[in-house]
Amino acid sequence: MISKDTQLCLSLSGRPSNLGTRFHNFLYAELGLDFVYKAFTTDDLPAAIGGIRALGVRGAGISMPYKEAVIPLVDELEASAAAIDSVNTIVNTGGRLVAHNTDYVAVATLLAEHGITPQGAAAVLGSGGMAKASLAALRDNGFDDLLVVARNEATGAPLAAQYGARWLPVLGAERPALVLNATPVGMAGGPAEHDLPVAREVVEAARAVFEVVAVPEDTSLVRLARELGRTVVTGTEVAALQAAEQFALYTGVRPTPDQVRRAGEFSRQEG
Amino acid sequence: MISKDTQLCLSLSGRPSNLGTRFHNFLYAELGLDFVYKAFTTDDLPAAIGGIRALGVRGAGISMPYKEAVIPLVDELEASAAAIDSVNTIVNTGGRLVAHNTDYVAVATLLAEHGITPQGAAAVLGSGGMAKASLAALRDNGFDDLLVVARNEATGAPLAAQYGARWLPVLGAERPALVLNATPVGMAGGPAEHDLPVAREVVEAARAVFEVVAVPEDTSLVRLARELGRTVVTGTEVAALQAAEQFALYTGVRPTPDQVRRAGEFSRQEG
Repeated sequence: MISKDTQLCLSLSGRPSNLGTRFHNFLYAELGLDFVYKAFTTDDLPAAIGGIRALGVRGAGISMPYKEAVIPLVDELEASAAAIDSVNTIVNTGGRLVAHNTDYVAVATLLAEHGITPQGAAAVLGSGGMAKASLAALRDNGFDDLLVVARNEATGAPLAAQYGARWLPVLGAERPALVLNATPVGMAGGPAEHDLPVAREVVEAARAVFEVVAVPEDTSLVRLARELGRTVVTGTEVAALQAAEQFALYTGVRPTPDQVRRAGEFSRQEG
Repeated sequence: MISKDTQLCLSLSGRPSNLGTRFHNFLYAELGLDFVYKAFTTDDLPAAIGGIRALGVRGAGISMPYKEAVIPLVDELEASAAAIDSVNTIVNTGGRLVAHNTDYVAVATLLAEHGITPQGAAAVLGSGGMAKASLAALRDNGFDDLLVVARNEATGAPLAAQYGARWLPVLGAERPALVLNATPVGMAGGPAEHDLPVAREVVEAARAVFEVVAVPEDTSLVRLARELGRTVVTGTEVAALQAAEQFALYTGVRPTPDQVRRAGEFSRQEG
């Protein structure tokens, strides 16, 4: 039962989904925490952030297209957000807003958990926010032969330059040891839902595949890499871990992997 | 289950209580409405109101000390708020904030429902926000022999002047036909919880008593007036009706009197 003392967390995104709302509320109930979570959108980001501060909203998940625009509106960038100049989490402590990036934390953590260490080249496919978080996490974990593969030179080339990577419009003959997909290829409902983001031969030549697309869990890339016996990190793992990090930042309680898994499953069931 | 489409309503007050949160959430559940309600406080009213607008919060109950300060922050004063230059309800429709005063509406409605018509003098005890709402409702319902009884001349005299009433520091020998208590006398937990706000003889001489103190329902004034067979309006009726008006403004659904009564009872049970 919600009371005056219940703490509100929310998310801000251009196109809210139900994933975060269901994930967080499931875990609040599971863990008996006096919190409530709801997704919002806004056409006035400064006023929305001002309202979060003024109302004492405890935390805010920040999604596209606000991840960079929110930077001048917060009081402090924690290291994870500063590493990539991109924010996906704001924690409000007594009116002071500290910004984090749990995507960066999740990628870095999963590299370590899956034993993916710097051996050979690592190719990041894409040039958006998750590509940036992934590149920074790779660089900060010792990967020094980095490729950014993105058709769009205007975003791909500067991103590569920023992280000491080479930019390639297409992978061509390169056969990186690690392939990380941060493009929308494979995303449910997208135009390339059933496609591979790289040629089959690239996956065959790789040691490890890191998928960022979260829905479906078994993208074509993930299925092929599993068939081939490669080390695989799924986008569902990324999404769950970054959400668990957010959850811990807001509540001070870290859910168990099993709780996160069940919350993730619940969040993907509409209804 | 809360989703991204659940609408948020909230309240802003200097010292939030659980009454509104429990009242509204009870009725949302009872009526199957996809809303959630929570009380907040703020130390930055303009930013809080800006956040309500930017986040698309559907409605906001406004309590002390914000009822007048909020006026320049909204887009429109509806007649009930304009009548007393005081706001207790904001409705947000697509970013446009319209301010109402459901206390005024509740007092006016209860006068009519209890058949309390202008006969003889009406004395309003107190000079705060509810005294103002009550005076305006009385004046607008044809009461033209109005007294404002308030020890504090600095607030009582201008309030009386504004509504064409006489100001008296104490009631003295006056015997009004209607006594309306808008002071804290009788309020649970207050210093005068068991006192009458006027002498017993005043109640004996009156036709009707209108209590604004909501908790407890049976103040000393209400009990005495009932013993004497007077027409009685209780503060619980005022609180319930103003809350039902708020509820209808936010949701478009008007709860039944029985639903309001049960929500009111639920809201007064802590825990």
